[in-house]
Amino acid sequence: MLEDASAKGMLAASALIAHGRGEAFDYLLGEVTTATALGATREAAARLSGGVRSVISINGNVAALAADDLIRCSALLGCPLEINIFYRTPERMTALLEHMSERKAAVADSPAPTGWSGNGDQSWAEVVSAVRILGDEPNATIPGLEGPRAKCHREGILDSDVILVPLEDGDRCEALVAMGKDVLVVDLNPLSRSAMMGNVTIVDELTRFCANLLATLLEGAPVVSRGWDNEANLKSSLDEIYNNISRTDSSPES
Amino acid sequence: MLEDASAKGMLAASALIAHGRGEAFDYLLGEVTTATALGATREAAARLSGGVRSVISINGNVAALAADDLIRCSALLGCPLEINIFYRTPERMTALLEHMSERKAAVADSPAPTGWSGNGDQSWAEVVSAVRILGDEPNATIPGLEGPRAKCHREGILDSDVILVPLEDGDRCEALVAMGKDVLVVDLNPLSRSAMMGNVTIVDELTRFCANLLATLLEGAPVVSRGWDNEANLKSSLDEIYNNISRTDSSPES
Repeated sequence: MLEDASAKGMLAASALIAHGRGEAFDYLLGEVTTATALGATREAAARLSGGVRSVISINGNVAALAADDLIRCSALLGCPLEINIFYRTPERMTALLEHMSERKAAVADSPAPTGWSGNGDQSWAEVVSAVRILGDEPNATIPGLEGPRAKCHREGILDSDVILVPLEDGDRCEALVAMGKDVLVVDLNPLSRSAMMGNVTIVDELTRFCANLLATLLEGAPVVSRGWDNEANLKSSLDEIYNNISRTDSSPES
Repeated sequence: MLEDASAKGMLAASALIAHGRGEAFDYLLGEVTTATALGATREAAARLSGGVRSVISINGNVAALAADDLIRCSALLGCPLEINIFYRTPERMTALLEHMSERKAAVADSPAPTGWSGNGDQSWAEVVSAVRILGDEPNATIPGLEGPRAKCHREGILDSDVILVPLEDGDRCEALVAMGKDVLVVDLNPLSRSAMMGNVTIVDELTRFCANLLATLLEGAPVVSRGWDNEANLKSSLDEIYNNISRTDSSPES
């Protein structure tokens, strides 16, 4: 999927390298969603549902790997998606906007996810069609960032209170936290700056996370925790990697 | 360097993802050459020096990252380099052969490495110019592999007794071991199939390894160990990752 996205001009050159880093961390996790990650996913679902102006930020890798499920999540949440990329060029933005529009049309045409209980008298196609995909005409900037990477939509990222930023760059994550937003990060490296900076960090592979987020939203959003401790969450994620490696360590094949 | 190499057509699409996986493992190692890796590098230097027909196999990532030092090592060893890639296409082979020829000319024009004690009455430029870069006219196949990836040179890989294969694919590594060669692997993941399959596995980042290999060869090759235990070597590399993570684990920044 990433090779195709790269050929379509959706990705920066470094995007594939970043993906490979994630693959290695997933390998260390045993390529499974851990109990800790599932708990963090449920917390993210609760916060996105409870947000007054939730938004989901989409970069090139996210668009390539998880467009469909995130469009479904946006439809359930009634929140916009905003394409927001680190290396913003007109060509990449056009390729990403086209891809997301295509995927939105495809998701609207496909059956509603199992467990969808409806939304008044709207059909699934209508609910999906109402999802706004922002990014084409940024009219604001994220304070503390410079150049094209600061650009965003006022009605999307700028005025949001809760923001899901899968696979986000550390600087941008920091800037969003500094704006006082509730920042939900998906990152396979529990020691990355984004992971440490976020308010809720889900240490899981993106497509598994999106499937779990969707399932959680379909079940009905859980309640936001009173005392979410993201440091403990990261520590627990790191322990899971550590335990997985030490299990492997005792029996290298020869 | 990899982005440039990718733009020049030297790399398969998956090469950047593979590199990213390596970066993550290097991060876990603390981005340093460990004592274990240095010991394995010295063993590799000893075996390459002792080989009757040693050869160094070069793929796209290796050419992009470490051409110069491997050309210097080949000059010191008097052994050929062979470009041998998994996704072999005429375009990639042409791009790689051009790149290696350019780098060979540049290395021949640059000063001899510090510590070079000369080679009879030959100048450094002459020693480098004598390095053969194979890959352009494969005339043999590696048994057990199919399609273009099996192609090799008889006077290079096929008839070699000792082969250095940095960043090698698991299938090809297995095929070389099955041919009875002494296979020296460089791989940052001590649990990869290549790492487990090799006779000597150096768990280190490629450019650090190449600099250390060059320095070891310049000092004069060490003697081959009698009872090299590659399983113990891998176990030790894994322990180093494990210890590095557990040190980090105790103090996540908040």
